[in-house]
Amino acid sequence: MLDQDHIEEVREIGPDLREAIAAGDAERISALLDPLPYSDALRELLALSPVERDGVLELVPAELAAELIEEAPDEMAADLVERLEPERAAEILEELDSDVQADVIGEMDADDAEAVLSEMDAQDAADVRRLAAYEDNTAGGLMMAEVFRFSDKDTVGKVLRTFASEEDDFERYRGQHPYIVNEAGEPTGVVSLRGLLTAKRSAHLTDIMVRPMTVPVDMPLERLEDIFDEHPFLGIPVVDTDGLLVGVVSRSAVAEAVLERSESESLKRQGVVGDELRSMPTWLRSRRRLAWLSANIVLNIIAASVISAYEETLAAVIALAVFLPMVSDMSGCSGNQAVGVTMRELSLGLVRPMDALRVWFKEISVGVINGIALGLLIGIVAWIWKGNPALGLVIGAALALNTMLAVSIGGVVPLLLKRLGQDPAAASGPLLTTVTDMAGFFFVLSFATLMMPWLI
Amino acid sequence: MLDQDHIEEVREIGPDLREAIAAGDAERISALLDPLPYSDALRELLALSPVERDGVLELVPAELAAELIEEAPDEMAADLVERLEPERAAEILEELDSDVQADVIGEMDADDAEAVLSEMDAQDAADVRRLAAYEDNTAGGLMMAEVFRFSDKDTVGKVLRTFASEEDDFERYRGQHPYIVNEAGEPTGVVSLRGLLTAKRSAHLTDIMVRPMTVPVDMPLERLEDIFDEHPFLGIPVVDTDGLLVGVVSRSAVAEAVLERSESESLKRQGVVGDELRSMPTWLRSRRRLAWLSANIVLNIIAASVISAYEETLAAVIALAVFLPMVSDMSGCSGNQAVGVTMRELSLGLVRPMDALRVWFKEISVGVINGIALGLLIGIVAWIWKGNPALGLVIGAALALNTMLAVSIGGVVPLLLKRLGQDPAAASGPLLTTVTDMAGFFFVLSFATLMMPWLI
Repeated sequence: MLDQDHIEEVREIGPDLREAIAAGDAERISALLDPLPYSDALRELLALSPVERDGVLELVPAELAAELIEEAPDEMAADLVERLEPERAAEILEELDSDVQADVIGEMDADDAEAVLSEMDAQDAADVRRLAAYEDNTAGGLMMAEVFRFSDKDTVGKVLRTFASEEDDFERYRGQHPYIVNEAGEPTGVVSLRGLLTAKRSAHLTDIMVRPMTVPVDMPLERLEDIFDEHPFLGIPVVDTDGLLVGVVSRSAVAEAVLERSESESLKRQGVVGDELRSMPTWLRSRRRLAWLSANIVLNIIAASVISAYEETLAAVIALAVFLPMVSDMSGCSGNQAVGVTMRELSLGLVRPMDALRVWFKEISVGVINGIALGLLIGIVAWIWKGNPALGLVIGAALALNTMLAVSIGGVVPLLLKRLGQDPAAASGPLLTTVTDMAGFFFVLSFATLMMPWLI
Repeated sequence: MLDQDHIEEVREIGPDLREAIAAGDAERISALLDPLPYSDALRELLALSPVERDGVLELVPAELAAELIEEAPDEMAADLVERLEPERAAEILEELDSDVQADVIGEMDADDAEAVLSEMDAQDAADVRRLAAYEDNTAGGLMMAEVFRFSDKDTVGKVLRTFASEEDDFERYRGQHPYIVNEAGEPTGVVSLRGLLTAKRSAHLTDIMVRPMTVPVDMPLERLEDIFDEHPFLGIPVVDTDGLLVGVVSRSAVAEAVLERSESESLKRQGVVGDELRSMPTWLRSRRRLAWLSANIVLNIIAASVISAYEETLAAVIALAVFLPMVSDMSGCSGNQAVGVTMRELSLGLVRPMDALRVWFKEISVGVINGIALGLLIGIVAWIWKGNPALGLVIGAALALNTMLAVSIGGVVPLLLKRLGQDPAAASGPLLTTVTDMAGFFFVLSFATLMMPWLI
């Protein structure tokens, strides 16, 4: 019901929006987009032509433009910003936190990025350059440069005055606690809310602070996940190799990165490497998909060579050709289920590469049951359909065996790939289907060759 | 490098842990598990036999046991808790927030759940019963019952004294702001940190409060995502149909639910409906996987009937059988790439069911390029391999056409399923492969029938 209403509502805005853009009516555009959730407003923006999009981003207040840019995935955000005049692009980006600025600018062409950076506040631009240099999915790549920072000479009163005065800036710290930094720039303390609320205004921060937990810039996402899991902090200070405070990584930045990693892995398992969006250029989308498909077609040809080796058997019992794709597809599906569960357990941290044997035991027990069930089913179908019990036996036995093989491979291969330092998300599927295709064809055709007297 | 170290470290703990459990040495067990990240500690626990697991959960301090339970996915957590004595289970659960309690107890058998609830604090048990009644992935299902709640008669001083005193309870509110509730129980205000820090202690909360944003108990996860996207709040009060304050939904609970939904959809796309973990009973895992596979095998049989209809053509040109599985597999892969991108854009909110036509235009442009590229590739391979240019033409043309069909279906079907109120994650794949299998077989075999004079 809600969804339906939503669709109607969205449908109505498009023409009005185009009219307002054509008329250069900035207020009307804002009035149309402002009441929408950002995700809906972004979709409206994307439904426009590129020139109309530029119009919207140039005309609306910088804050609204910044929200739309932040809502978009990074690559798309970079595409949108690149098309604007550098002054306007800088104005919009200045509304965003430094971590988002760095993500968007990091996706831009080097020349465009430089043009925008040179229009930004010098300090902000320096922060962005610094942040953009860190690896994605490390503390450095996820942190923001804005730190709610005080000196070890400051008092509680100073913090309270800051709360009272710097209204805008305070928003930027996303609920950070005040961090105390010594003259060298090392974080030496953090002050709790309770400390602030219950201490005298004249108290020195050093009297009520505790030693802060810190993480190094190169700490990987997996460890950050563990740390935020175990501690209630909303943010953790990040230090460089000299122990100096360089930023703060927030709980929400880590949560967002984990979600993105999960969705990106899920795409890769479907054969889409690189986080494709349909707003990307056709040639790029096509090239990325083809790269994966071309590797896959080579594997397919290898598997098909098994069929080719048994052409005589096939020629004698042409009905086998009806069942070959079925056996290979069903085994692939069974194996993919096992891949899915292993990938989930890997991402939940419930299995490690060394657990391959334990995983195999768990898979083969399901594989035996499902193999027998599916083998019986397809065997009976083949028998009745083609009126030949021997054919049913050949097909049924082949599917049963191949199902057991497929779940074994599907369960274990992602762990082995991980152990070898390969990416299990992109490679498990093609490896699995190649082996199960070859084995499936081999089982059907070699069993048929053995049973030939009863088949013809 | 880090990963390798990690593996070594984990490998060492197992035997020591078993020894400590056998000796009933609670301190030793805690000393072994406490220094580990919770995810590693949970994996160690799962590597033990069920009886050993019970031993660990009975012997370690309730806080540590609670952390392990919280780290586990809900179904697994319920299995672990069900095996314990109700008194101990209640003691462990009392360490957790009400939303986690409700999730775990919601997964337990009704009898076990009752036994545990009757051992819990009466107020907590009532909260859990109330929370467990709400739908998953709604504000009610995601909220916690603990509210940092004050009356509209209270002063700033009262809040500050609460901060100073209720050390333990305060942790539970996960950074909530103080909410002001009138006598009827309606939330009438919220007080900002800045307000608290800058007001006099004698000031009434009603003087510095602002009207709070609230959400209804039945607000779905998608809307909550939008709201937390647009507002910096760490929590939002949840009201029932009478407008009474019944709980607070936190930013982190929403982020976690979004991640779980994403992983659960990704599993479903691989044919695993229900969030399988290998710790579940074999018959349950087998039955859930078989349900999906059985539906799939029926679709496979329908597709195979196309081959069966062309057995004469196949008998005449047996080499066709080598390429049939290849055409169907490659088209399935191309289509799945399109499914993956549509699912991603749906979850990012970039497309809506009504955008099917726009999506199709974007897909067919990639489909034409990739279809021609793959068709040429496989056509040349077939020509060279079997020495027949006409065979190359048949196979190449069939794959090219079927690739265009597959990306069209793959891109659009998830949107249509969504529009029909169906679940695109579980159903898109089987629907796609059935149609592309049928069409692929039909293209190859009907083209071959037309080209027969040049093929034999």
